[in-house]
Amino acid sequence: MLSFENDYSRAAHPAVLEAVAEANNHLYPGYGSDELSDQAKAKIREACGQPDADVWFLVGGTQTNQVVIDTITPAYAGVVAVASGHPNVHEAGAIEFSGHKVLTIPQHNGKMDPTELDEFCKTFYADGNYEHMVFPGSVYVSQSTEYGTIYSKAELQAIADVAHKYDMPLFVDGARLGYALTATGSDMTLTDLATIADVFYIGGTKVGALFGEAVVFTKHNTPKHFLTRIKQHGALLAKGFVLGAQFDALFTDNLYFKIARSANEAADRIREALRAKGYMLTFEAPTNQIFVTMDQPTIDRLEREVKLGFTEKADDTHTVMRICTSWATTHEEVDQLIEVL
Amino acid sequence: MLSFENDYSRAAHPAVLEAVAEANNHLYPGYGSDELSDQAKAKIREACGQPDADVWFLVGGTQTNQVVIDTITPAYAGVVAVASGHPNVHEAGAIEFSGHKVLTIPQHNGKMDPTELDEFCKTFYADGNYEHMVFPGSVYVSQSTEYGTIYSKAELQAIADVAHKYDMPLFVDGARLGYALTATGSDMTLTDLATIADVFYIGGTKVGALFGEAVVFTKHNTPKHFLTRIKQHGALLAKGFVLGAQFDALFTDNLYFKIARSANEAADRIREALRAKGYMLTFEAPTNQIFVTMDQPTIDRLEREVKLGFTEKADDTHTVMRICTSWATTHEEVDQLIEVL
Amino acid sequence: MLSFENDYSRAAHPAVLEAVAEANNHLYPGYGSDELSDQAKAKIREACGQPDADVWFLVGGTQTNQVVIDTITPAYAGVVAVASGHPNVHEAGAIEFSGHKVLTIPQHNGKMDPTELDEFCKTFYADGNYEHMVFPGSVYVSQSTEYGTIYSKAELQAIADVAHKYDMPLFVDGARLGYALTATGSDMTLTDLATIADVFYIGGTKVGALFGEAVVFTKHNTPKHFLTRIKQHGALLAKGFVLGAQFDALFTDNLYFKIARSANEAADRIREALRAKGYMLTFEAPTNQIFVTMDQPTIDRLEREVKLGFTEKADDTHTVMRICTSWATTHEEVDQLIEVL
Amino acid sequence: MLSFENDYSRAAHPAVLEAVAEANNHLYPGYGSDELSDQAKAKIREACGQPDADVWFLVGGTQTNQVVIDTITPAYAGVVAVASGHPNVHEAGAIEFSGHKVLTIPQHNGKMDPTELDEFCKTFYADGNYEHMVFPGSVYVSQSTEYGTIYSKAELQAIADVAHKYDMPLFVDGARLGYALTATGSDMTLTDLATIADVFYIGGTKVGALFGEAVVFTKHNTPKHFLTRIKQHGALLAKGFVLGAQFDALFTDNLYFKIARSANEAADRIREALRAKGYMLTFEAPTNQIFVTMDQPTIDRLEREVKLGFTEKADDTHTVMRICTSWATTHEEVDQLIEVL
Repeated sequence: MLSFENDYSRAAHPAVLEAVAEANNHLYPGYGSDELSDQAKAKIREACGQPDADVWFLVGGTQTNQVVIDTITPAYAGVVAVASGHPNVHEAGAIEFSGHKVLTIPQHNGKMDPTELDEFCKTFYADGNYEHMVFPGSVYVSQSTEYGTIYSKAELQAIADVAHKYDMPLFVDGARLGYALTATGSDMTLTDLATIADVFYIGGTKVGALFGEAVVFTKHNTPKHFLTRIKQHGALLAKGFVLGAQFDALFTDNLYFKIARSANEAADRIREALRAKGYMLTFEAPTNQIFVTMDQPTIDRLEREVKLGFTEKADDTHTVMRICTSWATTHEEVDQLIEVL
Repeated sequence: MLSFENDYSRAAHPAVLEAVAEANNHLYPGYGSDELSDQAKAKIREACGQPDADVWFLVGGTQTNQVVIDTITPAYAGVVAVASGHPNVHEAGAIEFSGHKVLTIPQHNGKMDPTELDEFCKTFYADGNYEHMVFPGSVYVSQSTEYGTIYSKAELQAIADVAHKYDMPLFVDGARLGYALTATGSDMTLTDLATIADVFYIGGTKVGALFGEAVVFTKHNTPKHFLTRIKQHGALLAKGFVLGAQFDALFTDNLYFKIARSANEAADRIREALRAKGYMLTFEAPTNQIFVTMDQPTIDRLEREVKLGFTEKADDTHTVMRICTSWATTHEEVDQLIEVL
Repeated sequence: MLSFENDYSRAAHPAVLEAVAEANNHLYPGYGSDELSDQAKAKIREACGQPDADVWFLVGGTQTNQVVIDTITPAYAGVVAVASGHPNVHEAGAIEFSGHKVLTIPQHNGKMDPTELDEFCKTFYADGNYEHMVFPGSVYVSQSTEYGTIYSKAELQAIADVAHKYDMPLFVDGARLGYALTATGSDMTLTDLATIADVFYIGGTKVGALFGEAVVFTKHNTPKHFLTRIKQHGALLAKGFVLGAQFDALFTDNLYFKIARSANEAADRIREALRAKGYMLTFEAPTNQIFVTMDQPTIDRLEREVKLGFTEKADDTHTVMRICTSWATTHEEVDQLIEVL
Repeated sequence: MLSFENDYSRAAHPAVLEAVAEANNHLYPGYGSDELSDQAKAKIREACGQPDADVWFLVGGTQTNQVVIDTITPAYAGVVAVASGHPNVHEAGAIEFSGHKVLTIPQHNGKMDPTELDEFCKTFYADGNYEHMVFPGSVYVSQSTEYGTIYSKAELQAIADVAHKYDMPLFVDGARLGYALTATGSDMTLTDLATIADVFYIGGTKVGALFGEAVVFTKHNTPKHFLTRIKQHGALLAKGFVLGAQFDALFTDNLYFKIARSANEAADRIREALRAKGYMLTFEAPTNQIFVTMDQPTIDRLEREVKLGFTEKADDTHTVMRICTSWATTHEEVDQLIEVL
């Protein structure tokens, strides 16, 4: 059966699997202290235009958010995120488990408004009782967002400016970074992102890897003894070279961005078809996640032929469903989907 | 200078101080295993109409909220509270420090709406991804609320019913319980509360004690090894008998409720005067906290004569100020305040 | 250069890699809710002789120890382990990070003595102040141990009996379980282990997998909402089917035990050679880890030809070095090593 | 019945109670921002010879240890203490609850040996795997120790020197500081301590106060937003002025040291009698805690007349009992005790 359920249903891009198989011909030291990881990090640094950046490989998205947020946020502080942000909704309390509050402000198509961030912090510091409250200590945004939307360079810079005004690092969750940076209409490059954000991660799990996220600290700001902090969170992979091999493959010949772009092109075709057929797109978004508000008969009809993702009830008779393309989506699959729409 | 800043500005009711001084004539064993504590607990059990209730003494409000919420909420769960709830706003992240998320729903004059609580839980369990989210594991309300309002018996019972429907204990923060139960128009007694809530505390700090809160578990539901949990939170007082002495005094001859009632009568007189003089009461509330929305010239004028509490900016030209009476407020002080209003 | 540094230097057994590659031809749902994982779990249940066991896949060893210990140990309690236990020494405080103390008793060749465990608990409960102390809440042992030694059936049963006497579950860390159960002289089968332990894990990372550990709860004792707890620890892998594929391969045709046995045979040959050449074995141990106390000239000589693992300084002139075989060690490599010894 | 059970059986020194009663005639702002607290802090600063020291008041000993250790120890680190240290044994895991491991080294009559501390740290940093371990991040000692012994100036300085060599602050738990500094033979003054330690506390609970510990940061090293951290731990007292009043009394006319000295003189007399009568003192210690190893008939005989404290079983027929004097012990009580010995 056709599936557009999510972007982590297929194991890995063939080039990634080959890189792992090739690594199997050698012995490597453990915990990321291997040459494959070094090589992958060098390629990522180059792609970021940041020869001095610190790069670390972790296994999954929630884990990465937990480790990064916990280590960049002071103990007396929380992380500011929009209410729809992944750590606030879908991480089973992983941030609170490590002792920090998620301080929420409203989302707008999944995005943070820098003015509202400023207002939130201004109000905090203007409150005579703020020492009895959780300080805003870091800022979390996702690129692309949970609703598939993206920040422009100017928008992200504006958020960074506010964050820095209040002495907070800006952390960009890039679980779907490839899809964000190669979206039709995006004006942001990886180099831009590396200039704006204090720390971000390049998502592998959803963009061609078996698993793996590459965390990039761009400003000589790696938390002290970060390897120990990773281990303390149970997040240090013994065979770090398996992460190295995968990111080495993804950052060879621009593979990461090529396969992400292909997913966006597939999504663009689907969006065009949806619009042509009168479907109601829940958000205007240019990346690989398409949210569509449908009535139940439509859902029933579609689900006989294609697996979609449930997002949430919109009202008594409508539901927001997600159509998700990925690096693995083929032209034929898109054709078939459009046919059944 | 006249002060109506808060209800914890004066050390203790004379009878409480005398009880402590009298205790000084004896030696007691430590950590609450003394006869004075036993005697105070017996009096509280009787006042609650719960001969089997477990009573524990802690030192302060945030501490009590942290210890109780942490120990009654499963590790995979958070506590549901209204957004204005003290643990969500003014406890510096004490709940998250112990690993739990505060799950918020809207407040209505500081109160929780049982229908919204039900909706929140229904939506949670209807979400296909709920296992990736923080479970609603307990319910927190305050009586009186942070805005001075109170729940009726029926209202609190309705919340308890929803909580139990979703297998959550209901915890009632009674930092200002005396003021709530003796408010003009309140239909709830301590016995009622003890029947409805799974656990609650009787606030001493703000109602006549030097410090101290009496936690009451009413349904054979004290968390296992609770004394060890208290100690683990750094909350076990060596000289527990000092807490025992105070609550013994407060629950002798109904003192706790008498002095709370006196604060409410003072507040009633002030409210009457405020209304007569055309002030705008921010909330309709019958307890010892009066919130008034004032313009700056009024604030400036008043603050030359009387200390008030700042609550929050209402808009560019108005501020919500708090006038707070306490068990220590005298008739003369109320007269003086009314004169300057 | 020859390497006997550790047992996690090579990516994966070819059959495991093939299984992952084959999985790449299909789409699977996320988070372990896929048929490959179901199939692997069924095979593990069968191998354990426990048709009702709950099986969960996690990524790494420290992560597994953190998740299991945190979820089986009451909040007022710690985990009892020998001082040399991995969670006490080499997990960067991952257990304390999740709020639990590691309560240590002495090790004997890396093993726990059930009598000492009994004595520890007896002393605890006999102490008039025990409510001010950390309760012994669970027991951790590793099979094989950090020093390569193994427990017999009777020894492990004796520990389980003491653990249960004090109402503690017994958790067996099987990071190197394959090597333990196939060691020359071992009298324990996987079925035996599944009968004795309350929870254990079958280590994949060090026995043929790219990564992955299979946690087995044998007594209908999976902690409530365990998937949510895993997620909360940042330990839930999006592509759970990659874990399923690997364990499916390892538990097909007894592969897991065959390759572990081969590592033990290699180690037996090396031990024989070491003894013949007069080396001093630090521990009498039958598994794939061989600890040898050497003087510096010997170390210098050997390290020109072969990579060994540093364990610890024994005294001013001697060091404990580790020679570690694995499922990937070849007969030729052993020949070469013996030659240089 | 006569009691020498502990030093926290009597509420407070009369002068402390009077100070609280006098405070009751005034209104004070909350949370320690009052003039009484300011005045008490000024007196403590002067007594410490540290005009710039930061002084904070907390409620109890375990709470203070938890708050201080958590805030001065990096997140990747633990606190080094001797095995008999209070946080390792009798705080119900309060340190681990806040995420830190207690790293233990042997005790010698309850004291830390600076050479062993140095060796511990040297071994740690010499270990090739130290990044996988818990860093030594701070040092905890108690003055007097859990066994009533004391550090000389030179001994404490030697520990501080080692601590600083490895970039660790030295924290001195002064729950019984008064008894330590006024012990017969002590060569340390409060000024000395304030010069040597990075942070310490002056215990009130056991030296004349109802409750309360004064934390002193001597080197402009108060953790950032310390008030918020205190609140987050549930440790901020609403009526901070009650703490201020008590310490103001204790540091007026040298009261704190006078009453502590009186307890030591009582203990000296008891020790002399014990020696004369052939009792076996468990430790050579000059402060208010006297540990005596007794056989059961002796214990039975004594306990008919006087309450003693149980410490631990020494062997099958002997037990270590504690005789504890306090600021409240009278000459007559000592006479009576000596008579029954």
